[in-house]
Amino acid sequence: MKPDDSRRVFEGTRISVDVELWHGHEREIVRHPGAVAILAVDSEGRATFVRQLREPVRRPLLELPAGTHEPGEEPLATARRELVEEAGLAGGEWRLAARFYSTPGFCDELVHVYIAEGVEETERLPQDDEEIELVRVPVAELDGLLPQIEDAKTLAGLLLYLCGR
Amino acid sequence: MKPDDSRRVFEGTRISVDVELWHGHEREIVRHPGAVAILAVDSEGRATFVRQLREPVRRPLLELPAGTHEPGEEPLATARRELVEEAGLAGGEWRLAARFYSTPGFCDELVHVYIAEGVEETERLPQDDEEIELVRVPVAELDGLLPQIEDAKTLAGLLLYLCGR
Repeated sequence: MKPDDSRRVFEGTRISVDVELWHGHEREIVRHPGAVAILAVDSEGRATFVRQLREPVRRPLLELPAGTHEPGEEPLATARRELVEEAGLAGGEWRLAARFYSTPGFCDELVHVYIAEGVEETERLPQDDEEIELVRVPVAELDGLLPQIEDAKTLAGLLLYLCGR
Repeated sequence: MKPDDSRRVFEGTRISVDVELWHGHEREIVRHPGAVAILAVDSEGRATFVRQLREPVRRPLLELPAGTHEPGEEPLATARRELVEEAGLAGGEWRLAARFYSTPGFCDELVHVYIAEGVEETERLPQDDEEIELVRVPVAELDGLLPQIEDAKTLAGLLLYLCGR
């Protein structure tokens, strides 16, 4: 399936926007390289979250460690890289819990959510422009955390883990 | 919290894009009016889904009925309106199941997900430019549907319902 016409109206460093014509209707479409999120549980049974300022919503949110694909990078490679960079965690047993579009009505961002169990601490490599607070939560307390979660991929990852999916 | 500088780089009919400066770092931010999704279960115990072309991802997706706020519209009003327009369903008992940002790293879209039980058929009012196929699924089969779901709000809504959250 292809549009009848497409023109780029914004070219950014992380996102771009195309206006496309589909059967006479205009569609404004955000292009995004795709992202990953990781629910990582360490050998002490604690999950790691990150709290960071999310400029679009004007405040910090509590989220799973996450990040965006580099060009040509496979989702699992992105996930392992981001978990080291953001949380200083590596190793363990990994599985893909879900794969979904964050908001497919106007954006092509595809998110892969992984669950990694038995991760261990390694050297953390935060990027220059990220100020991130790490928050460790025992898995027995994850259920009580749900009402605080305001990020789609974090909510999906937690529910998949808690409901055994 | 406010940016040091903000300039609009794209003004669309459904979304806009701002480039903002935060402590020396540029952020590309998509502005969106916010959206709703509804897991509606009728008196025969069937949930209603919609299958429609999602131009950003070049194919149809199976999703919960959903839609975008009109200016000044309350989330519950949007949800009741969209359920009539898209699915021809009204009435029943409603509750807010979750409220989250679809992708807060670069977008301010806030999504309210409702669960409506005991809905009944009414006159459907599809909008001009929406070609939507309705799909009814008995609630006992929702678990088996999970692997097919590729939309964040639909996945979150289904998991919240199935896991009793």
